Amino acid sequence: MRLTRYFLPVLKENPAEAHIVSHRLMLRAGLVQQQTAGIYAWLPLGFRVLKKIEAIVRDEQERAGSIEILMPTIQSADLWERSGRYQEYGKEMLRIQDRHERDLLYGPTNEEMVTSIFSSAARSYRDLPRNLFHIQWKFRDEVRPRFGVMRGREFLMKDGYSFDIDAESGRRSYRRMFVSYLRTFERMGLRAIPMAAQTGPIGGDLSHEFSILAETGESQIFCHRDLMEMSMPGDDIDYDSDLKPIVERWTKPYARADDEHDPAVFESEVAPNDRLEARGIEVGHVFFFGSKYSEPLEATVSTPEGRSVPLQSGSYGIGVSRLVGAIIEAYHDDAGIIWPESIAPFQVGLVNLGPDKPECVECCESLYAQLNNAGIETLFDDTSENPGVKLSRMELIGLPWQLRIGPRSLKKGVGEIQARRTGENTEVPVDNLVERINTLLGRVSA
Amino acid sequence: MRLTRYFLPVLKENPAEAHIVSHRLMLRAGLVQQQTAGIYAWLPLGFRVLKKIEAIVRDEQERAGSIEILMPTIQSADLWERSGRYQEYGKEMLRIQDRHERDLLYGPTNEEMVTSIFSSAARSYRDLPRNLFHIQWKFRDEVRPRFGVMRGREFLMKDGYSFDIDAESGRRSYRRMFVSYLRTFERMGLRAIPMAAQTGPIGGDLSHEFSILAETGESQIFCHRDLMEMSMPGDDIDYDSDLKPIVERWTKPYARADDEHDPAVFESEVAPNDRLEARGIEVGHVFFFGSKYSEPLEATVSTPEGRSVPLQSGSYGIGVSRLVGAIIEAYHDDAGIIWPESIAPFQVGLVNLGPDKPECVECCESLYAQLNNAGIETLFDDTSENPGVKLSRMELIGLPWQLRIGPRSLKKGVGEIQARRTGENTEVPVDNLVERINTLLGRVSA
Repeated sequence: MRLTRYFLPVLKENPAEAHIVSHRLMLRAGLVQQQTAGIYAWLPLGFRVLKKIEAIVRDEQERAGSIEILMPTIQSADLWERSGRYQEYGKEMLRIQDRHERDLLYGPTNEEMVTSIFSSAARSYRDLPRNLFHIQWKFRDEVRPRFGVMRGREFLMKDGYSFDIDAESGRRSYRRMFVSYLRTFERMGLRAIPMAAQTGPIGGDLSHEFSILAETGESQIFCHRDLMEMSMPGDDIDYDSDLKPIVERWTKPYARADDEHDPAVFESEVAPNDRLEARGIEVGHVFFFGSKYSEPLEATVSTPEGRSVPLQSGSYGIGVSRLVGAIIEAYHDDAGIIWPESIAPFQVGLVNLGPDKPECVECCESLYAQLNNAGIETLFDDTSENPGVKLSRMELIGLPWQLRIGPRSLKKGVGEIQARRTGENTEVPVDNLVERINTLLGRVSA
Repeated sequence: MRLTRYFLPVLKENPAEAHIVSHRLMLRAGLVQQQTAGIYAWLPLGFRVLKKIEAIVRDEQERAGSIEILMPTIQSADLWERSGRYQEYGKEMLRIQDRHERDLLYGPTNEEMVTSIFSSAARSYRDLPRNLFHIQWKFRDEVRPRFGVMRGREFLMKDGYSFDIDAESGRRSYRRMFVSYLRTFERMGLRAIPMAAQTGPIGGDLSHEFSILAETGESQIFCHRDLMEMSMPGDDIDYDSDLKPIVERWTKPYARADDEHDPAVFESEVAPNDRLEARGIEVGHVFFFGSKYSEPLEATVSTPEGRSVPLQSGSYGIGVSRLVGAIIEAYHDDAGIIWPESIAPFQVGLVNLGPDKPECVECCESLYAQLNNAGIETLFDDTSENPGVKLSRMELIGLPWQLRIGPRSLKKGVGEIQARRTGENTEVPVDNLVERINTLLGRVSA
């Protein structure tokens, strides 16, 4: 993408309304723009990151056997009245009346609807187990929306729902999601710590939240340091196998957020050197709630013996739009964002430092064509702005690799590759630049 | 995808509420399920089609130089009050009050918001031209939602917006979208006829709607038969070139919907044998409205001479969810849907007609693995249902190619490939089946 044809409205000043670094950087780097309290438009660069995160979430959901659907944002109040949550949910639910004065609401979550959809078609144990997920915008009418997309009102969430014949099978489905969540966050460069959690308005008796560590986290986390080092299930994970050992390994070390923390247990179970205390940001949450929704909604299936039993379910959420903020909280420096490669909006920023020099223009145009042909996502700063502006903008938006072409180095026949994360600079002969970038990106050489 | 692990709730009976064939088939084939009047959940099969259509739309938008963003579904009433449309829009606009009694609305379109976003960053002619698009759910509170997703309340739309320095340049942007729309629909197997149209609540003085022909269309179309045969701009189209000749070629032959139709002109311009009268379904609409929104919103930029002028804009819509219905209206028979390959939910339906015969199971498992390895999207009916049920379900859901393995043909060492569109059946040696499918799909042989 050529910057002269793109829409990247970076801000020079720190926006006054942004109190945490991710919010500040998202506004400054032109990722989002607030439209009204807690409601954001995603600008081109932010949209690309959102889509990258979504793609990883989708991929890992499918790997774990979940099936994608898409439920609407607007729901009828009826189902929620049947589950009892219509009144219970309080003012966070955005209530709406249509032109015929029927009660609607903007879905904050979808347990009722998905239970109704699934049970309208599932008849027996033969239709189970299943896990349906969707990635859809939700609305929670927060009293005081803040921290940018971290606590917005309209937010993008992956929510998945499992359906099983009995609680034992339901817990197997729960473990499948538990394991897939570990992998999902790891692929975004995040170490998410699973912690036993309260079930709140979703209900049920089994729940874990997944939090990443970041200075500006909303809660205090106490855990065993081992959790930061434990190895992840690999690509070859078999989700049909017994996942109990993996879940036990990950839930054995002490890990709790402040609301569940017990200092006495922490101190008795974890040696002083192994104690980790840090701020945490919740990025995912899994629940097993059995028949909490299937009973009031009369969502039953028949067992092999011909008995009719309510579905056993869990729900599984990942805050897709929130993750954009959470990742920035975890990866930034004074100059700006430092995107992990897997979710960077572009892999490479190509910077022409001599836009008025024909040899620089020619070299950059050739490199840009080569990078595109190699399928490397490149943002090409082909503007005529001065080098200082260009370089600090590239730092701010945080692409993993910068490829700089300037008149001085070009005379030596080289360009510079800079790694955003380390700041390391390498001079590379112009003819080898694309191959080197390919190698750095861990791809097969072009 | 194995059917024993999928969620494909087909209906045997014709649903009473469905009055047109696409609505009927979408419910019967398990593509969607209505949640409340005019609001649908997309089930796995329907979701896949929706995503395929979305991907083609996105690809052609990007080819034409448009940049993707994502605006929220919920908007503040403020901007709409400034443009004067808040009152004007009437009851089709879903109006909402949040917990602080601020007026919000569920966006039916985004002219105001995108103008505000763009103009907050664009300063001068150097930032132009640009075209921003998004693919987002919209809401129009129809009095009487009907025809399934063809006239729903919550619907998915691609809406794009162009920004230019003057009307001449704005018309160039308009032509770019005009041409890209021809290509977009053609890639879905649709011939869309552009017709001069009224501008309605969007405003402006230049507008075309794109309609496809289908018996159940909502309007009557009168056009020159040539429009059905004219050649499309190819993949090598240069959107920076002068597109006037293409637009002129496509707008010269007579083509009007009933509200604009003039029988006298039709009869004088078009020879009797060239007259085509048919029902049409609108799938896209383009508008050029100049400064209609930029003036009230004070969205100005500076010219090369330093004057401040309002942005010149157009908007460009494609009904993404509506297209699923429109395509079915155009492609079906008595047995069910006939998906064009480019948007089929799966390319191949692999049917085991002898699920109790080990040799059939073994052969199908091997073929399924080969098809997956070749990257061919396959729905594998591995259920133990009887052949009649399996075959009629495959007909109903309309995948382009069926690959059938039965005990009798397997004894001869062959499987059957059936083309959904023609019904043509071919016996192919088992070892060549995947290669043959690859050839049929126009891919390089596996």
